[in-house]
Amino acid sequence: MQAILVGEALGSFLLFACVVGSGVMAQALAGGNVAVALIGNVGAIAALLYVLITMLGPVSGAHFNPAVTMITRLRGEGSWASGLAMMAVQLVAGVAGVWCAHAMFDLPILQFSDHARTGPGQWLGEFIATFGLLLTVLLTGRHRPDAMPGCVALYITAACWFTSSTSFANPTLTFARSLTDTFDGIAMADVPAFILAQLAGALCAHWLDRAMHPAA
Amino acid sequence: MQAILVGEALGSFLLFACVVGSGVMAQALAGGNVAVALIGNVGAIAALLYVLITMLGPVSGAHFNPAVTMITRLRGEGSWASGLAMMAVQLVAGVAGVWCAHAMFDLPILQFSDHARTGPGQWLGEFIATFGLLLTVLLTGRHRPDAMPGCVALYITAACWFTSSTSFANPTLTFARSLTDTFDGIAMADVPAFILAQLAGALCAHWLDRAMHPAA
Amino acid sequence: MQAILVGEALGSFLLFACVVGSGVMAQALAGGNVAVALIGNVGAIAALLYVLITMLGPVSGAHFNPAVTMITRLRGEGSWASGLAMMAVQLVAGVAGVWCAHAMFDLPILQFSDHARTGPGQWLGEFIATFGLLLTVLLTGRHRPDAMPGCVALYITAACWFTSSTSFANPTLTFARSLTDTFDGIAMADVPAFILAQLAGALCAHWLDRAMHPAA
Amino acid sequence: MQAILVGEALGSFLLFACVVGSGVMAQALAGGNVAVALIGNVGAIAALLYVLITMLGPVSGAHFNPAVTMITRLRGEGSWASGLAMMAVQLVAGVAGVWCAHAMFDLPILQFSDHARTGPGQWLGEFIATFGLLLTVLLTGRHRPDAMPGCVALYITAACWFTSSTSFANPTLTFARSLTDTFDGIAMADVPAFILAQLAGALCAHWLDRAMHPAA
Repeated sequence: MQAILVGEALGSFLLFACVVGSGVMAQALAGGNVAVALIGNVGAIAALLYVLITMLGPVSGAHFNPAVTMITRLRGEGSWASGLAMMAVQLVAGVAGVWCAHAMFDLPILQFSDHARTGPGQWLGEFIATFGLLLTVLLTGRHRPDAMPGCVALYITAACWFTSSTSFANPTLTFARSLTDTFDGIAMADVPAFILAQLAGALCAHWLDRAMHPAA
Repeated sequence: MQAILVGEALGSFLLFACVVGSGVMAQALAGGNVAVALIGNVGAIAALLYVLITMLGPVSGAHFNPAVTMITRLRGEGSWASGLAMMAVQLVAGVAGVWCAHAMFDLPILQFSDHARTGPGQWLGEFIATFGLLLTVLLTGRHRPDAMPGCVALYITAACWFTSSTSFANPTLTFARSLTDTFDGIAMADVPAFILAQLAGALCAHWLDRAMHPAA
Repeated sequence: MQAILVGEALGSFLLFACVVGSGVMAQALAGGNVAVALIGNVGAIAALLYVLITMLGPVSGAHFNPAVTMITRLRGEGSWASGLAMMAVQLVAGVAGVWCAHAMFDLPILQFSDHARTGPGQWLGEFIATFGLLLTVLLTGRHRPDAMPGCVALYITAACWFTSSTSFANPTLTFARSLTDTFDGIAMADVPAFILAQLAGALCAHWLDRAMHPAA
Repeated sequence: MQAILVGEALGSFLLFACVVGSGVMAQALAGGNVAVALIGNVGAIAALLYVLITMLGPVSGAHFNPAVTMITRLRGEGSWASGLAMMAVQLVAGVAGVWCAHAMFDLPILQFSDHARTGPGQWLGEFIATFGLLLTVLLTGRHRPDAMPGCVALYITAACWFTSSTSFANPTLTFARSLTDTFDGIAMADVPAFILAQLAGALCAHWLDRAMHPAA
């Protein structure tokens, strides 16, 4: 159990620091071209996701995301108690990662975003983004578990570009991004609707996976 | 059979939503630099192709493309009845994916493109693009089937840049892209010639593969 | 033997069409930002190299490059007669690929570049580029042959950026690129010095590989 | 032993030439958009890292970095005498690589950077960058050694974007980059603090790996 929590803490810390830090770097250097900034930001996130899932998958399962942890519990993998402990660690270590990014870039540690991200289009975006992420995790886990790190990293690459919300797809990351007034921020008021859409997408993928594999 | 149709539906829906959605996002953010937009658009499509073929290949074969389905039937793999059912699902789910992209980006659901894409140069482009795609599918399938997802994704990456038509290489996708007046649209009037060139390229690859492997 | 020549012809045709075609596309769309154009051009070339080496490696060895073919003959792999036949096919099919790219983009088929690429710095660049390419082929072939397609593709990605000549690293491709007055062209007068530097780099890698593996 | 030194020399020479050369190329072509330059520079470095670790890993372990060599010795792998010899070769060959890049681009061979890179934020950046690099090396080495080349290459890709210092993460490379007054330079006066932060990060990763695997 302890190793699982250390793995989730390391991964969430580095992942969230990367989301925020690479956003700050990319926006600062991109000269106003947001697509160029997004190429750098998304490329960094996807690259690190591959590394973290490869090296921490055997340690903790490499969730870094309470939506993933929740679905594993619905599937009967692990206890809800351990799941809640993982989610708590994801939250604490993830927020620490955001604050570490602020420290690296000489920004105020405590910030709140006022970046509005709302409306039915973006909620649909989060639903699709998280539906696809969980589908990737569940189907790749069944058919090609060794390809999981690459598939998750490349799915997020695609989803950041094709969903209108740029694919948060992670409730804890969504909350943590309300604590940064930088490229990847989201206003606190817009967080709950994103999280609801994410949970709906995750549950829908879980239901579909069950329907496709009744005997398993 | 049902699993095959579910796999083709899921894949076509997500793939076509990605083609259109990432085009909208990339163009909106690229500040008029079309090459930057294409880097984002093509990168997203290739990344998702890898994921979809990896996770749905064991389910449905991961065609998402009637030109591929047609060649499998010419090779004697599966019945024409099942092939036609797959093509119908690719069409319906793919168009639904385009409309989902419109909904995510708060655009009118029903649109028609007026983006002219025509002329002998682009028809040759579609011929080469689809010839190369089918050659990739057929030769990789013979020699390195485990490398198929990466090869298809990277072939499409290359073909989007080196063919003058930016490589549609998929009759159903070509039709579906006439239903979006965004970055990746094509005028309905230009669709038939593209599809003819694609079918010719696919048949040529099939013939060449047969000539290279007479005993198989 | 026939299969080898078909494989070299297919690969050289598609590779050279990609080098020129993606250069035309990237330059046309990049709005004057040459680094953006190079990202598209190099990305397309590397992606296709991976595909071609994966799917044609088992057919012909996937040389597409007389410097590689020459070194295989110096290593005693295959006869010089077959090597010369491969080189002839690489030349004819490669030039056909360049002309096909012109046809796709509605450009005059027959062109000659006046793009000066010369001087000791660029000759050193070609020496280093080809030295590194052959070292990659030889050492990966010894230690990790399954990783060859990815290594060659990624080596070329790096070399296009870090050598001052943007890494032609292929005598036939160098000649063929004198036949296109587009982004990737080179003046015919500058071709011989590039080829000499490439052959020197290839021989140096061969010698070093031999020195490192005396018993093999 | 001789093979190890040849491997470290080849890898350090090509890697350092790539860091500097691709920086010169990218900055020259990027038209002032630093993010575009960084995409080219980082992409080249990561691509070459994958190749060098794949082809030279079986020869020398593919360190190219005294922080990595130091940690192997703390873990009891190899003697300190051989470790010091590896570090000396990394330094000499790496500086030769920087000078070779200057020669390729017709720049003065002997240069000194005046690019200030200093302050607590950047030192934290170097600490995190090297901590993560060594964690990647150690955990991937335990759990998925075959994935090491890809993980190191992608970790560096991410770290270049998400750390405020753009991730030097290598004491010898840091010193060598003080010898180039180009895109990737660093003022000599700022080198010692970077190296101290790197060594602290490496030792911290080593300690954490030990704590996570007490029995190993």
